[in-house]
Amino acid sequence: MLDTTRLSPLAVEWLTIIRKALSEEKHVSTKTSAADLVTETDHLVEDLIISELQKKFPSHRFIAEEAAAAGAKCVLTPSPTWIVDPIDGTCNFVHRFPTVAVSIGFAVNQELEFGVIYHCTEERLYTGRRGQGAFCNGQQLRVSGETDLSKALVLTEIGPKRDPATLKLFLSNMERLLHAKAHGVRVIGSSTLALCHLASGAADAYYQFGLHCWDLAAATVIIREAGGIVMDTSGGPFDLMSCRVVAAGTREMATLIAQALQTINYGRDDDK
Amino acid sequence: MLDTTRLSPLAVEWLTIIRKALSEEKHVSTKTSAADLVTETDHLVEDLIISELQKKFPSHRFIAEEAAAAGAKCVLTPSPTWIVDPIDGTCNFVHRFPTVAVSIGFAVNQELEFGVIYHCTEERLYTGRRGQGAFCNGQQLRVSGETDLSKALVLTEIGPKRDPATLKLFLSNMERLLHAKAHGVRVIGSSTLALCHLASGAADAYYQFGLHCWDLAAATVIIREAGGIVMDTSGGPFDLMSCRVVAAGTREMATLIAQALQTINYGRDDDK
Repeated sequence: MLDTTRLSPLAVEWLTIIRKALSEEKHVSTKTSAADLVTETDHLVEDLIISELQKKFPSHRFIAEEAAAAGAKCVLTPSPTWIVDPIDGTCNFVHRFPTVAVSIGFAVNQELEFGVIYHCTEERLYTGRRGQGAFCNGQQLRVSGETDLSKALVLTEIGPKRDPATLKLFLSNMERLLHAKAHGVRVIGSSTLALCHLASGAADAYYQFGLHCWDLAAATVIIREAGGIVMDTSGGPFDLMSCRVVAAGTREMATLIAQALQTINYGRDDDK
Repeated sequence: MLDTTRLSPLAVEWLTIIRKALSEEKHVSTKTSAADLVTETDHLVEDLIISELQKKFPSHRFIAEEAAAAGAKCVLTPSPTWIVDPIDGTCNFVHRFPTVAVSIGFAVNQELEFGVIYHCTEERLYTGRRGQGAFCNGQQLRVSGETDLSKALVLTEIGPKRDPATLKLFLSNMERLLHAKAHGVRVIGSSTLALCHLASGAADAYYQFGLHCWDLAAATVIIREAGGIVMDTSGGPFDLMSCRVVAAGTREMATLIAQALQTINYGRDDDK
């Protein structure tokens, strides 16, 4: 259980907003597809986080989900930059499916420095800071050491595009992993929390096409600090803006997953 | 948060065993496939539950997952019968993925009378008793009233068979629901907890082929008492022994799901 007395007043304010909203009817609108939902709470929480951070750090830059949806460019410069997803798992949130997180990452000189992910209904606070480890409610996180795909629990998400060709590729990728006799594939509806499960060793690999830099920024630091690997789905170096990722407890596992995947093209965050 | 002082000493004993096991390395063996795992904890918890219940109710009958795997017949007679899954989500359990439950249902005259499902890591106790409502940690549960598949969050599980033909059907069913523009499909690795999410209104529908009477007994009472519908995947009446189910908050939603599905044949629990 999280000691909430250790949270900042700002964090307590988000939590109050999110928990209140979880008990209310939502006003929902769609972004790119019916699967890509946004609520007034996403906007409210994002505005609150950014306005508070701006007061403290007036020279810092921000990349945030709802601002990007409204047309703001997602460009990671060398300036100190906060990368914010106010509610990851918005579809879950709309349905009150209790797998919803706030994710805040921070980069300087285009290098991710720290990340914080808060699981809103289970009171789990995941944190990672470059060179200083990753923790959940104060307990150090350590990834799984599994290298054998036939013993792996693999996490993924469907992604926002639902046209027939994209769905075929998504399902074909899942089929390839199940043919390779992965123990199981899970789809929980929150990329950031799936990546936190990976960091905690509760799963062996994660992959997705169609996620964004605000899903990845905080989680990437947490996974690396828990001893894990984050790479591109091609098997090459991780690119925060590439809208795709493979992460795993070991390089062997990440490589096996990358080799199994067919690419689904979602473009780049910094090219929209 | 569950008030554990209200749990029986027996329940506290299972919890201690399960939580201890979640922090240890597992000795795992496989049943029908690599995806169908069993640990020594499954056996230990099942033996404990049954031996305690047998002391209190010596004339009652039992249907339980590990006993069935060892060859005991699954026949529901009119006698009072306890239907036990000691650890639902064993694959999750093996990986310490925190979605694991104990499920105990009770039937008399082949009618389900009550059910108890305990989410082992989140301390949520779901209960339902025929005619007396369904609750989670004392809070009454109510299903979603959604009737439109294009606004639905749908839950399913992959099932233990992983041969190419079964996987094709599993993925094709998922594809049909995503083509119908369901908001999302989630796979959390525990049938009973997925069904509890449905009962709590956090999802609109659930379907699965390849689950068993011990996954369904307790959850069926809880869903019905939360106002939901449990039916066969053909759209006909629910059959506890049929190894398949559609459940939803409304009859309209359950019927839409049943109409979308292709059948995957897993036989019957009482014919093995």
